[in-house]
This record gives sequence, C-alpha cells and structure tokens, in this order.
Amino acid sequence: MPLTLNDILAAAERIRPYIHRTPVLTCESLNQKVGAKLFLKCENLQKVGAFKFRGATNAVFSLSATQAARGVVAHSSGNHAQALALAARMRGIPAYIVMPHTAPQVKKEAVQGYGGQITFCEPTLEARENTKTEVIARTGAIEIHPYNNEMVIAGQGTAALELLQEVPDLDIILTPVGGGGLLSGTAIAATETHPNVRVIAAEPEQADDAYRSLQAGTILPSHNPKTIADGLLTSLGTLTFPIIRARVEQIVTVSETAIIEAMRFTWERAKIIIEPSAAVPLGLLFERKIDLTGKRIGIILSGGNVDLTKLPWQAETHP
Amino acid sequence: MPLTLNDILAAAERIRPYIHRTPVLTCESLNQKVGAKLFLKCENLQKVGAFKFRGATNAVFSLSATQAARGVVAHSSGNHAQALALAARMRGIPAYIVMPHTAPQVKKEAVQGYGGQITFCEPTLEARENTKTEVIARTGAIEIHPYNNEMVIAGQGTAALELLQEVPDLDIILTPVGGGGLLSGTAIAATETHPNVRVIAAEPEQADDAYRSLQAGTILPSHNPKTIADGLLTSLGTLTFPIIRARVEQIVTVSETAIIEAMRFTWERAKIIIEPSAAVPLGLLFERKIDLTGKRIGIILSGGNVDLTKLPWQAETHP
Repeated sequence: MPLTLNDILAAAERIRPYIHRTPVLTCESLNQKVGAKLFLKCENLQKVGAFKFRGATNAVFSLSATQAARGVVAHSSGNHAQALALAARMRGIPAYIVMPHTAPQVKKEAVQGYGGQITFCEPTLEARENTKTEVIARTGAIEIHPYNNEMVIAGQGTAALELLQEVPDLDIILTPVGGGGLLSGTAIAATETHPNVRVIAAEPEQADDAYRSLQAGTILPSHNPKTIADGLLTSLGTLTFPIIRARVEQIVTVSETAIIEAMRFTWERAKIIIEPSAAVPLGLLFERKIDLTGKRIGIILSGGNVDLTKLPWQAETHP
Repeated sequence: MPLTLNDILAAAERIRPYIHRTPVLTCESLNQKVGAKLFLKCENLQKVGAFKFRGATNAVFSLSATQAARGVVAHSSGNHAQALALAARMRGIPAYIVMPHTAPQVKKEAVQGYGGQITFCEPTLEARENTKTEVIARTGAIEIHPYNNEMVIAGQGTAALELLQEVPDLDIILTPVGGGGLLSGTAIAATETHPNVRVIAAEPEQADDAYRSLQAGTILPSHNPKTIADGLLTSLGTLTFPIIRARVEQIVTVSETAIIEAMRFTWERAKIIIEPSAAVPLGLLFERKIDLTGKRIGIILSGGNVDLTKLPWQAETHP
C-alpha cells in the first residue's frame, strides 16, 4: 500500500503530545533580498533541533508494545541518531545507535545525552551495516531507517501539514533533499491537501545525486559528495524516489557560496540559527536560477545543529 | 497622570498592525540547565531585531498629524535608532538620528536602510545633546527619547501583555534593565493584570547603576560601565525609576562570564540568536544567585542584533 495523506494525518495525531508545534516566521529583510514572500517553518526550533524528530517519533510510537520492547536501532551520526534516541526515551525503550568512532565528540555526547546506547564502528558503510546487523542479532531491536521507512516519511510530512494550516495560500513549498524523507512527506502532504501548491526541492550542486536521479529516471548514487550541507550527503531511497518522481515539480541545485550566504543572512536578519542543510532552499532563492519573483513561498527550515566554534565565515573573538 | 495599564492596552491596539506578535518558545535543555520552566518571549524576532520597535512605534503613531509632520528625532547608536527610523518610515514621516561618527558602519547602514537621516556628531554626551538641539531647531522634529517617554514605556509593556496572554500562570517575569523602559512597562503590565507575578530584573555587574539606584533610593549614574551587554549602559530615567521602585521586586547583578555562557548556550540549544543584553536574565538563572528552582519564569528576550564576525567565544573558519 503506498503512503497516503491519511498516514500523515495519523502521524500528526500520534506525535502531537511529543513534538513542538514550531512557529512560522516571516522576515521582511529576507523577503526584500529574494523578491518573494517567505514563510519559514522553523524545524530548527523542533526538539533535537531538526525535523527528524517528527519521523523518528512517529516510527517509534507506531510500534506495537511487543515490537517496542525490543528497542530500536539505526546507523547515523547525524540528526536522526539524536531524534531516535529521544523518541525512544520518551517511549521508555532502548535506542541502539551505530556510529563511526570518528564522529565528532559533540554528536556522541548529544546521542548519549538523550539516553542512546552507542556502538562504535569503523567509518565505512560496510562496517556500519555489519555492526547494525550484529546489534540486531544481539538485541532483536527494530531498525528505523532515517528516510527509507514509511512511518518516518509520514512523520516528516507533518511539518508541511502544519505550515499549510497556518498559511493555506502558498504558491510553492521548498525543502532541501538528501535521502528524500522530508521531501516525499512534504510532497504528499502538500499536493493532497492543496493541489495547486508546487513542491520544489533544493540540493547542493556538489551533492546533486537526487537532481541526476530525477533526470535519469532511476536512483543514482552520490559521487564523492563534498558540501558544507552535511545533512544532504545520502542518496534517495526506494520508497522516497517514486513519491518524489510523481509529486515534485523539480530539483534545483545550489552553489556552496549561495548556501553560506543564505545561512549567514538568515542568522543576521531573521535571528535564528539554521544549519547549512537548512540554508539550501534559501540559497536557491538567493541565486535566482528559477524565477519565483512575487510568489508566496513556504520553506521547511530543516534544522539548526551547528558547531558554533566552526563557522563558514571569518570571525574573531570579542571582547 | 502616571502611566497605567490602560496606556499599555491602548499601545497594544495602536501598534498591532505594525509589529510582529513574537512567538513564546520553550527549550527543554535550557529548563534542565537552570532547573526551572522557562517561557522565552522572543523580541529578538521582533522587527529591527529588538523590543525597541514596540515603544518607538507607539510613540510615533501617538503623535497628532500636525506633530508627526514635523518628524521625530533621537540620539542613539543602538536599537532605538533603527526602531525609530522604521516606525517613522511606516508613518511616512522623517526620522532624524543623531549618532557619533565613531558608531560601527553596520549600525549606520542599518539606520539608513530604514530611511533614517543621520546627523553625525562627536562621541560625547554633550555633543550628542547639542547636535540634537540643533536638529530640533532646524527641523522642528519631536524628540522620542529611548526610554524616558511615556508612550515608549507603554509600547515596551506590550511584550509582557502578550506573554501573559499566552502563558497566564507564570510565577516570575525577568527582563534586563538599562534605562528601564522595558522593565517599567513590563512591571505595569504584569503587576496590574497578574498581581501574583513577581517582576525581577537582571543587570550586568559591571554596569550596576540600576541596582545601586534602587538600594540608594535615588537615580545614580553609571560609573564607567564596561560590559559586553552594550544595550544596558544607560542610567535609569526620571519616569522609569519611580515605576521600578514601586513595582519591581529586586534587581540582581550578573557576571560577564554568566552572560556569555548563557548567550552561547541559547544559540546552541534554543537555536536563536540573542544579543548579550538579552542573555543577562538567563545569566542570572545560570548563576543561581537567587533561588528560583522549579518556578515558571517568563523571560523577555530583548534583542538579537549581533555582529556575527565578532563573537565572545573562540571560533575558526570552516570549511
């Protein structure tokens, strides 16, 4: 059964007690800069600082009591790891996170802070997969994939649902695309409830596998992706690709320069911390590769997890 | 006639079409850190990035048509200058801003960006006052003082009004204190509508003139204030002092270390940009000089205007 709007509506009900209903902000300086009217759905202000908490929570609370008792597992060193750890803690079950031992200390501590049990592995995809299989064999835990999981996709779609409840007359919704969980959930939520809303995705030029996949009509892997938007390195999944192909108008690629400029402008003028991945749709508007002048554009700001001691612009210590 | 709740209610009506109704955010990490339940009224997300826009807008739109036609004037190099410039532009009247020629370029450009007409002067209080007098003589403009003005105080009080509408069962409201406009407006709004709410202010240890004034029972000047919280350098005014004396429970001083720690923690975990002055009440909670454990605390986050290339912690450029 393909995923439908009903799954997203059910997800919204299921996760409501656990998530933040994040604000939709507007910023006149941003509007003037890009020549459009923007509505920022602030998932950077979501718990764990990212939309990923919606999908993880929906997946964890969709499990039967028997399934849940076994715990959940994922390999991730990003926002999904923290999201799954916190969602599992809220349900009172273990979360086993497989993470390369080379992951930044701050990410290890974040997962542990939410009660996640980390198993370290070598920093290769093969080692991650093998270690995950070992953890499953040892614990019986249920895998919650970061995006190729229907309950995760349904959860991610709830952000767009809230955005459209608050601002129903959007012309366009923009999201970033990595594995496609946010994009496919958003596309179902938007096109089913507001058929005239166009869904467009933004992807770093230097990690353009989703763009190329849509052109080719088949899932293509990433080739050595090298972008500051480190949440968007993954390829599309078998569940997300067909949804995106059917419902997303286009994927537009964005330069690293535009991503960084948009991130900094948003910090400076909208006064919110967004991570580079969240700046990619804004970068699309800064670059004006497609003409969206005068449109009413909803943007899902995907997250705000940034190392404040490593910034993509020159900064000195003061005072 | 002393300022009353009715003035603040009238201000709220008057400025509603022009201001953002800013969100009230919660952050579990902050709650755990300080051992209380915090409700952050995000005036850093207000237009021009500060609560000052409320007071300036109320003052500008309170003028009669004849008065307004003459324009408005203030000497300020801070958030009030930008706020007054934008409020005046919204009413379609000139704003004359007196500013020392030594003010940072970014602040000059911000005021000009909002249509303010700057007259530069030497960086002394005497030069500012003289230049302001000259501008008034030349233009007939009406002075809008940044805090010693009843319409400004009434406007600043509207933030607390909104906060208490959204979260009526607060135990305490915390604000920073500089000239006392925000604090006195908040104190009237809170104590008149919710007599059980305690109003407490936070002030940098290194600019503790309000704390000393309250002890002494008379307005004392600042002695060489030297704090990163550069919005809080001014002394109390003749209008704000009596209100604060009558309605504020106490003023607590906060170390520079706690201000910076609270600012960084808020950026990192709450994902919002706050300026040092806005971090002072949070610094009070971080330092735990008074016991507020378990309380429900509303905090007016006063602003978010920060130079992102000058941060009070070590940062390197990446990538």
